[in-house]
Amino acid sequence: MSAHGVQLASGPQGAEQLSALLGVALRGMEAGIRERGGPLPAGGPAVVSAALAAAGGGTGRLPREGIGEERALEEMSRLLGLGSADPAHPHCAAHLVCSSLAVSVAADVVASALNPSMDVWELAPMASEIERDFTTGIAGLCYPAELSPDAVVTSGGTESNLLALLLARTLLGADLQVVCGANAHHSVTRAAWLLGLPTPVVVACEDDRMVPAALEAALERLGSSTLVVATAGTTNTGRIDPLAEIAGACRRFGARLHVDAAYGGLALCSEEWSGHVRGVELADSVTLDMHKFGWQSIAAGLLATRNAADLGALTISADYINASDDVDAGLPDLLGRSIWTSRRADAFRMAVTLMALGTDGVGRLVDHCCATALEVAAEIDRRPDLRLWQSPSLSTVLFRPTVLDELPITAGDALVGRIRRELLARGTAIVGRAALPDAVDGHRKLWLKLTLLHPNASGADYRSLLDQVVAVAAEEQAGLVESR
Amino acid sequence: MSAHGVQLASGPQGAEQLSALLGVALRGMEAGIRERGGPLPAGGPAVVSAALAAAGGGTGRLPREGIGEERALEEMSRLLGLGSADPAHPHCAAHLVCSSLAVSVAADVVASALNPSMDVWELAPMASEIERDFTTGIAGLCYPAELSPDAVVTSGGTESNLLALLLARTLLGADLQVVCGANAHHSVTRAAWLLGLPTPVVVACEDDRMVPAALEAALERLGSSTLVVATAGTTNTGRIDPLAEIAGACRRFGARLHVDAAYGGLALCSEEWSGHVRGVELADSVTLDMHKFGWQSIAAGLLATRNAADLGALTISADYINASDDVDAGLPDLLGRSIWTSRRADAFRMAVTLMALGTDGVGRLVDHCCATALEVAAEIDRRPDLRLWQSPSLSTVLFRPTVLDELPITAGDALVGRIRRELLARGTAIVGRAALPDAVDGHRKLWLKLTLLHPNASGADYRSLLDQVVAVAAEEQAGLVESR
Repeated sequence: MSAHGVQLASGPQGAEQLSALLGVALRGMEAGIRERGGPLPAGGPAVVSAALAAAGGGTGRLPREGIGEERALEEMSRLLGLGSADPAHPHCAAHLVCSSLAVSVAADVVASALNPSMDVWELAPMASEIERDFTTGIAGLCYPAELSPDAVVTSGGTESNLLALLLARTLLGADLQVVCGANAHHSVTRAAWLLGLPTPVVVACEDDRMVPAALEAALERLGSSTLVVATAGTTNTGRIDPLAEIAGACRRFGARLHVDAAYGGLALCSEEWSGHVRGVELADSVTLDMHKFGWQSIAAGLLATRNAADLGALTISADYINASDDVDAGLPDLLGRSIWTSRRADAFRMAVTLMALGTDGVGRLVDHCCATALEVAAEIDRRPDLRLWQSPSLSTVLFRPTVLDELPITAGDALVGRIRRELLARGTAIVGRAALPDAVDGHRKLWLKLTLLHPNASGADYRSLLDQVVAVAAEEQAGLVESR
Repeated sequence: MSAHGVQLASGPQGAEQLSALLGVALRGMEAGIRERGGPLPAGGPAVVSAALAAAGGGTGRLPREGIGEERALEEMSRLLGLGSADPAHPHCAAHLVCSSLAVSVAADVVASALNPSMDVWELAPMASEIERDFTTGIAGLCYPAELSPDAVVTSGGTESNLLALLLARTLLGADLQVVCGANAHHSVTRAAWLLGLPTPVVVACEDDRMVPAALEAALERLGSSTLVVATAGTTNTGRIDPLAEIAGACRRFGARLHVDAAYGGLALCSEEWSGHVRGVELADSVTLDMHKFGWQSIAAGLLATRNAADLGALTISADYINASDDVDAGLPDLLGRSIWTSRRADAFRMAVTLMALGTDGVGRLVDHCCATALEVAAEIDRRPDLRLWQSPSLSTVLFRPTVLDELPITAGDALVGRIRRELLARGTAIVGRAALPDAVDGHRKLWLKLTLLHPNASGADYRSLLDQVVAVAAEEQAGLVESR
C-alpha cells in the first residue's frame, strides 16, 4: 500500500501504478520461463508441489499478514512461469488450448483494470457497445446477415453447448431429447444432466464422423422435440461431421440443429478452410471458441444463433439492474445476454485482436496450423517407425509408434499411456491421446495425438518431438519385455 | 506481426513482446481516462455509440484486414478508458463491483500470458497447485479445518449459487425444493430454472432479513428434500440474515443450508466485522465473491462446502483429460473442480492478492468501506434535505431526498428513477436503486443506494455526491410541478 492507500488499477493514477507492478510481474514470469526451459516443468506433480512449498506456499492457509505487492508478485509470477505448461513452446501440443497473442493479453489488462461488468449498461457503457459490435460480427461470420442472427459471449465451448441446449429446452419444452454423435464433446451429455434433461441418444460414427443414416434412424424413433448436436472439429481428431446431410435430416424430421464448432468455427476466417466447415450456417445455433483457433486466453467462448429471437430464452429482469422505467428511458438491457450476472468484458480483447489482424489475418494463422498438420502427417507417413491414423482434419494428427503393432491391443494401449506420461515427466513434450478404431484392422486402439495450434511453429519443429516419441517407445517397450 | 510471425505472450520472447504492447495499451487507457474525467462518460448510450463509430467501429462487421497490433491496441484502449464507468472514482457507487487492485491485475497478466487451463494437470501444473492451496485456504476461512471443508473457483456469485443448488440436487434428488428469502439474489431463482427444479418457495423478510418463524412455517409444509438459501449481505441493503436461527430451523427440519455470502463473505477477514457474518460456518455451502469485497476484477467467485465430499457431485471423466490409467499413475484429476472444461486461472491473482495483503490487509479494506458507510449514513442523517432508510449493514447506504416525501409514492418513485438517470446522463455519479418498505409509514418505496467498495475513498468524498442528488432532485421536482 502507498501513502494514499492501496494501489488501484484504474482512475487517474491507474496506468502509472499498474505499469510499475506489471514490470515486476513480467520480470518474475521471464525468470520462471528461463528456469523452466522446456514446454513444462520436469518431474511431475511432486516437483511442482515442492517448488511451491520452497516458496512458502502449499500450506493450505491464507496468510494473515501480507508480504507486500512487489514481493508477492515477483515470487508468484516466477513460480507460475517456472511451473506452467507453455503453449508458446511447439512441443506443448496435446490439447485445444492455444498460445495467447500478446496483443490480446495486453488488451485484457485494460478490461481488467476498468473492470466493466457486462450485465449493467451503466457499468459497461463502452465495453457493452464493443461487445455488441463484435458479437454481431461473429453472428455475421456464421450466418448470412439477412437472417438477422445474433451471438453472445460465454466462458468457453462447454458453456456455449449448455446455452444451446437451454435455448432448445425453452423453445421445444422440458421433454427435449438431445441426440449427438459418439464423437461429441462430453460437455453435451454434461449439459443435458445439468439442465435436468434425459441422457442424450448417441448416434454411431465412422472415422469419427456422425453417420447420417444412423441419425435418420434415431430421429425416426424420436418425437419432434429433439435437438441434434453435430460437431465441426472433434476433440479427438478434428473431423467435421457431414453438416449438410445432417441438416437435411433435421429438416425432414423437424429437429433443431446445433453445431459444436468450438474447434472448427474460426476456420470460417480462412479462404482455404472455410469450405470445410460449410454447413454451420444451416444450424440453429453454433458454438465457437477463440481459445482454440483465435489465439485468445481462456475464456473466449461464443454462441451464435440463426434467429436473434432465440436468445430471448435468456431474458430476465432484476429491479436493481434493468428496471422497466430505466429500460423505457433508453438504458440498454444487457442482463439477458448471459446466464450470469456480473460478467468479464472478454469481448474486448477478442475485438481488439480482430481489429489488429482482421479475419484475413486470423484465417492465415488457421491456414498455417492446418498446413503444419499436413506436413507433420506426411513426415509420420514417411517414417517406418511411426504409423499415421489417417490423413488429418484441421490441425490434429494421430499416430502410433509401429513398435506397438507387435503387442496385443491392451499392452499397446498401456504403452501409449506410458509414453505420454514419460514425456510429461521428462518435461520435454505434452502429447495428447485418443481411442479410435484402426483403419488397418478395425480394432479400437489408443493413439498419440498432436493438436497443432502454434501460429509460428513449422513442421520442422515437430521432428524432434517425433524422435522423442520413438525413442521413449523403444525404451518403454524394452522395459516391458524385461519385466515379463 | 513481426518478421518471426505473430507476437505471443509467453515463451522466451513473451515478456519482452508483452511489455512493449502493454505500454501501448496503458498509454491508450490513460488518455481515455483523462478525456473522460468523471466516473462515467456523459451523454448516455448515444454518445458512447457515436464515440465508437467515430473510431471506425460499430459497423457490426468483423474487419477483413487488420490495422496492426499497436494501432488497434492504442485506439481501443483509449475508447475503453474514455467510455467506461470507472470503479476507482468514488462516485461510481451503485453496484457490488469494486475497483481492482493493481497487484491483482498485474498478476492476471501472467496467468493470461501462460494461459493455463485448469481442467488438465499437464496444462496447469503450478496454477492448479496454487489454486488448490488457495481454495483450501478459503475453505478454512469459512469453516473450522477439522471439518475437512473444500472450495472451488467460479465465475461469480451467480455460478456459485448455481453450484450450491446442483450439489443439493445431486445429494437430495431431483425433487429438491429450494426455499429462499424475499431478499435473495435473483440468481437463486434462475439457478432453479436452469437446473429444471421447481420455482423456489419465497419466505417473508423484515428489514430485508429473512424471518425465521416464516421459514419454520415453510419447512413444516415441505418435505425433507429441501435446500434453504440464506443471504449474508443482500444486494439491496447489505443486510445479513439471522444465520444461527436459520441453521437451527434447518437442523430441526432436516433441510440443507446454503448461505449466499457473495457480498458479506470476505468480511470474515475483518476482526471488526467477522462477528456480523458469524453463522456461515453452520451452512453446508457458502458463496463468496471477491469482485465485491476482495478487490478483484470479475470473475472471482468461490463456493466453499462444509464437506469436501459434497463436491463429488461434479465428478466426471473424459478420456482425453482424466483417463483412469493417468489418474492411477498419479496425475491429479482436476476436471471435477468445475462444471466447465477449460477454465481460467483466476485463482492465481486472488492468491497473489492474499499473499500481498494478507487476510488482515483485506480485512482492513473491509473495515474501511464499512466505516465510510457509517460516516455517509451519519452525514445523511444530519442533513434535513435527505432521509436515511435505516442504519447501514456492511457498506450499503440507502436514502431519499426529503423533497420526495411531499409526493404520492408512485410519483416519488418515478422521481428516484429520474434522479439516478439524470446523474448517469451528466456523467457525474452512478448511484443504485432498491425498493424497500419505509420504516416511517411502512410503504414500499424506491430508494437511492450507495454501495461503498472504494478502498481509499473517505466519507468526505461522498458529500459532493449527496449535494448533487439534492440539487437534481430539486430540479426534477420543479420540472414535475411545471409539467403538471
